[in-house]
Amino acid sequence: MAEGRALQTLLQALGRLPGVGQKSAARMAFQLLQHDRPGALKLASALQQAVEQVRHCKVCNTLTEDEVCAICRDGRRDRSRLCVVETPADLAAMESTQAYQGLYFVLMGKISPLDGVGPQDIGLDRLFDRLAPRDAQDARTADPSVQEVILATNFTAEGEATAHVIAQGLKGLGLKVTRLARGVPAGSELEYVDLGTIAHALVDRR
Amino acid sequence: MAEGRALQTLLQALGRLPGVGQKSAARMAFQLLQHDRPGALKLASALQQAVEQVRHCKVCNTLTEDEVCAICRDGRRDRSRLCVVETPADLAAMESTQAYQGLYFVLMGKISPLDGVGPQDIGLDRLFDRLAPRDAQDARTADPSVQEVILATNFTAEGEATAHVIAQGLKGLGLKVTRLARGVPAGSELEYVDLGTIAHALVDRR
Repeated sequence: MAEGRALQTLLQALGRLPGVGQKSAARMAFQLLQHDRPGALKLASALQQAVEQVRHCKVCNTLTEDEVCAICRDGRRDRSRLCVVETPADLAAMESTQAYQGLYFVLMGKISPLDGVGPQDIGLDRLFDRLAPRDAQDARTADPSVQEVILATNFTAEGEATAHVIAQGLKGLGLKVTRLARGVPAGSELEYVDLGTIAHALVDRR
Repeated sequence: MAEGRALQTLLQALGRLPGVGQKSAARMAFQLLQHDRPGALKLASALQQAVEQVRHCKVCNTLTEDEVCAICRDGRRDRSRLCVVETPADLAAMESTQAYQGLYFVLMGKISPLDGVGPQDIGLDRLFDRLAPRDAQDARTADPSVQEVILATNFTAEGEATAHVIAQGLKGLGLKVTRLARGVPAGSELEYVDLGTIAHALVDRR
């Protein structure tokens, strides 16, 4: 977009955001510097504040500013169900359905051998500690009220692998382990749904 | 994505960026807070620095950190040609072709009556002062070396209107006023080119 170190640094920093290429970065920088300098300063301070204040919920691992997030603190939630999701965005998607009243565990990632992400890099240890204490110290963090674990990782290769690893790890603990149903999305026409999805919907028909 | 004021503020600030909706904002916030906190702080300081240091070139009006931008200072540029573009990004697009060696004038917008943007809101006065001094004071900022003005505003309704207003304003000054050629884009198949473009390419055939 232009020469100069401050502009170049801004373009590079914007270009590191996910889904933002060189042209989008230039468009954002132009918009902020030409029409919305207060917005640029607001974004700068929001970033700094979030980096300072946002951490992981001690119980469910989601991003929060508190030691324990609002959902985990909420006494009205059904503590017998634990839904395992990959990211806080997936948690938000589940919440927005208003169809789930249980608790969550947020992995903050997925097993992805190609990217060098193994079971130890996502929150799997903490999840297992919560559900299956291995020694006296773990027992204090264990949550005996959970009866069903709902695996709601994404239906991608990595998400499926992650769900599989969790299901294996929970075997023999007497927990009900379920997976979100696969099938034809609401509002879609069969003609435009991929074959794998139709095959799964056929197998899981009810 | 999550409760909490710092997170909400960050999501709102990211959502104000052009082309960023609620879901992209959540994805960016997650990426920054989970995997790239140094990147978040870098972006924050880049934004602050840019807001402090970036201003408009006194000659061509583009965004720069200097009083006069590098292109305007460059003695090797052809000072007889002046290319009028809407934004610094358009200037960058022209520069990246390496087909133009002249100078620029960056309007920093376009005439858009629906958005309440008239000729006085974009840099038109400064452009006319540079090309056609109306009194003694203007004469000092006038640039007598310009012989051709190339109108390179976008080929949208607003861009065309802007080009038309500039062409009208420059009438009778003895300047050659040209417009970028309209036609079929390189690499495209006629079948998929819209009718208006084909019609223009036919009229402007050579």
